[in-house]
Amino acid sequence: RSGNKASRCYPLPPRCKPDNKVLAEDLKTPDNHVVRDPRLIRLTGIHPFNVEAPLSELFDEGFLTSKDLHYVRNHGLVPKVEDTEIMDWEYTIEGEVENPIRMNLEQLIKDYEQITYPVTLVCAGNRRKEQNVVRKTKGFSWGPAGLSTALWTGVVIGDLLKAARPKRGAKYVCFEGADRLPNGYYGTSIKLNWAMDPNRGVVVAHKMNGEMLAPDHGKPLRIIIPGQIGGRSVKWLKKIIVTREPSDNWYHIYDNRVLPTMISPEMSADLPDTWKDERHAIYDLNTNSATCYPAHDEKLPLGQGLKSYKARGYAYAGGGRRITRVEITLNKGKTWLLANISYPEDEYRLAPEGEELFGGRLDMSWRESCFCWCFWDLDIPVSQLQESDDIMVRAMDDAMMVQPRDMYWSVLGMMNNPWFRVVIHKEGHTLRFEHPTQPALMPGGWMERVKKAGGNLSNGYWGEKLSGEDAATVEEEPAK
Amino acid sequence: RSGNKASRCYPLPPRCKPDNKVLAEDLKTPDNHVVRDPRLIRLTGIHPFNVEAPLSELFDEGFLTSKDLHYVRNHGLVPKVEDTEIMDWEYTIEGEVENPIRMNLEQLIKDYEQITYPVTLVCAGNRRKEQNVVRKTKGFSWGPAGLSTALWTGVVIGDLLKAARPKRGAKYVCFEGADRLPNGYYGTSIKLNWAMDPNRGVVVAHKMNGEMLAPDHGKPLRIIIPGQIGGRSVKWLKKIIVTREPSDNWYHIYDNRVLPTMISPEMSADLPDTWKDERHAIYDLNTNSATCYPAHDEKLPLGQGLKSYKARGYAYAGGGRRITRVEITLNKGKTWLLANISYPEDEYRLAPEGEELFGGRLDMSWRESCFCWCFWDLDIPVSQLQESDDIMVRAMDDAMMVQPRDMYWSVLGMMNNPWFRVVIHKEGHTLRFEHPTQPALMPGGWMERVKKAGGNLSNGYWGEKLSGEDAATVEEEPAK
Repeated sequence: RSGNKASRCYPLPPRCKPDNKVLAEDLKTPDNHVVRDPRLIRLTGIHPFNVEAPLSELFDEGFLTSKDLHYVRNHGLVPKVEDTEIMDWEYTIEGEVENPIRMNLEQLIKDYEQITYPVTLVCAGNRRKEQNVVRKTKGFSWGPAGLSTALWTGVVIGDLLKAARPKRGAKYVCFEGADRLPNGYYGTSIKLNWAMDPNRGVVVAHKMNGEMLAPDHGKPLRIIIPGQIGGRSVKWLKKIIVTREPSDNWYHIYDNRVLPTMISPEMSADLPDTWKDERHAIYDLNTNSATCYPAHDEKLPLGQGLKSYKARGYAYAGGGRRITRVEITLNKGKTWLLANISYPEDEYRLAPEGEELFGGRLDMSWRESCFCWCFWDLDIPVSQLQESDDIMVRAMDDAMMVQPRDMYWSVLGMMNNPWFRVVIHKEGHTLRFEHPTQPALMPGGWMERVKKAGGNLSNGYWGEKLSGEDAATVEEEPAK
Repeated sequence: RSGNKASRCYPLPPRCKPDNKVLAEDLKTPDNHVVRDPRLIRLTGIHPFNVEAPLSELFDEGFLTSKDLHYVRNHGLVPKVEDTEIMDWEYTIEGEVENPIRMNLEQLIKDYEQITYPVTLVCAGNRRKEQNVVRKTKGFSWGPAGLSTALWTGVVIGDLLKAARPKRGAKYVCFEGADRLPNGYYGTSIKLNWAMDPNRGVVVAHKMNGEMLAPDHGKPLRIIIPGQIGGRSVKWLKKIIVTREPSDNWYHIYDNRVLPTMISPEMSADLPDTWKDERHAIYDLNTNSATCYPAHDEKLPLGQGLKSYKARGYAYAGGGRRITRVEITLNKGKTWLLANISYPEDEYRLAPEGEELFGGRLDMSWRESCFCWCFWDLDIPVSQLQESDDIMVRAMDDAMMVQPRDMYWSVLGMMNNPWFRVVIHKEGHTLRFEHPTQPALMPGGWMERVKKAGGNLSNGYWGEKLSGEDAATVEEEPAK
């Protein structure tokens, strides 16, 4: 997957499937113009399109994800833009600026310096299914594949904002897309400070993995905000509005927030000030990790001379922070093993000076922040797996924060990041592995299983029965 | 504690005790010239001077700490500098720079813009005593008062580095003090990137709370690095050295690191590459909190009509991040209550334009990062306290990372930040509160008590006996 020059030894995108087309189920929806990959798992029925790839397929693609398998989070229909209209796509930079700007994509490409670099986008709902099993949230059930990495090409937003000249007192930048929804166009905001900071790398992007954006990924223009949740990276970009206050867009206030854990769905219906409290808005990703191999339902035959098994997975942190260690426990946190970490993102930092990729400058040598996932692996002796009930993984970031044992449940079900637990079943001469959940309504996973059996899913128990606990007393979620 | 103008409504420093003098115990040490406050608790015998204030006295001083009660971390003797020599104090900016600089303090004050702002310094060892009770580390026993806040006046280091013009390829800034120690002068480094970033606010400081630095705090010149552990803020500054690699100073490598938890003190003796791995070096503070009231051994009389008790404490995060919520549990994490948070640091942001304080510009309106501790409080019904075994507190930062239930033990005992637990004892018509530990070798606290009684201090147990566990089988740490 390396390029043609000896020095270009950074990852390039995996090939896309040439034969994808509009799928039968999309024909009856407003998205009947959008080509999609049938492997993607639909999380909210047929429409709107919210999907993740099967975890193993995502992992097997490697550091970069093809557009075929890149996760998608759409709130409604996909705006239709013909290829011939792309260069005429107009957007504005307005609000608290001295020099409001209206330009089209052609001007953006012609008049501004283009850059290219890899960014891992992560949905704030990644791993939400685990929360939904413990207690139903208002969000749909992402598995642990709600993240993907691509090479994005575009213009650093600081260059555009400097041209628009923010006024004194301006503190926020709002983004608005072309996707008209029940509560208005999708929109959100970030701090102007961040947008102006080159280390944060916010980009107005028009290419993904060297191609124009696919309709599901914002064709023809979108924001990319590294290190923050995907919900801030507005697609089908129409407006950049500099403001003194955070966005008052419905989706900025009522989505992508972690309300305090004691607020129940019922209470949340009548707490407008709590929703509006910017302290509850999610920007930076939190530190997270998951195990990809062993996969769910993977079987490891015993007694065939295999001495060790290489467990593998991913980890990421937010705000440009780096994962500094990944640790594995085989005894529920009593002791830990240190995994190996690889950071393919670092390979781009070594690109030769002046390197160009997909029409953008690949200039990452000066930047120390981390915008992408990393991979971990650990050879575990099979004899130890045989003696263990489970494999759990946790990551630590360079701010010395560790993934917690505990789930932080909240109304919207966001930012779920407790230790990721894979159960080991001994079945005759085989070990069978079981992930916590399967995405969407797909059955499977130890969490649903132990919940049905009346086990205790509270923090720190992982489904063990409490002494004296009667399985019959565990309440089932009422069916709706 | 407000100033004399109506608009100056930010905290000013508490008064110092006028009658402090050189203490008898210091007369026989090389620090026989240093005036100190007798209330400070010595953590490493008489010398070197490593102290924290009694937690209640620290908290009672409010947002800013007087120099009398500010914690001190000295590795050896305090360099002696006469008042008359201060302005002649020379330091250099050297290494990978186009324009090496040697200047004295007089020039630093005369030739560069002076700024003043509040910064909370925190020792990486804050709360280490709790770790030492679980398993002895190589570090001495800080209680939860290893932090203090002061107004620092000096020059933003970016201004100085710009004048010195770092060469291409330079990536780090090393600092070296005048304190000669068994392994050379104390020194460490941070990233050049951070030093050049105005949002990070690194300062070369010569005043603390409006006075020249006290000998224990770096007289006459030191570094102040907001949001990072105190160990990077080198005192008695002599050299700023721009480099391509991190500092190779002994103290940079063998202090202020969190080695992976599975590395025992014995193993660590023979792992030079592990020590040198920069991923283990601590820079940003991690998110932490503690309860100050109820204080250790505080008694709450019952049946006198008191309906509720106001619990109070502090919290902080690292790297400029903000504490966005503080939560209290009275049932070991099953449910949580939301505490109130106050951020006195915000009051400085509202200072009028052009405001000067102690000869420095107080210009914080543009900065959104948080460099200081905040305070939390919560009114808890006394009836609930009566029914609870303990009060535990945890904080969340704006990167949505929460303090963990689990302690991360490591060889040096650093960055301890699990939920802070205060035990509630019911004694007749009184509730008595018990903190986890007392600093240094001071006896007291539930952790030592339950350890002696054979209780289980492993993560998630807080001293409860395991079913079937025999107290007699718990091993005592062998006496040395």
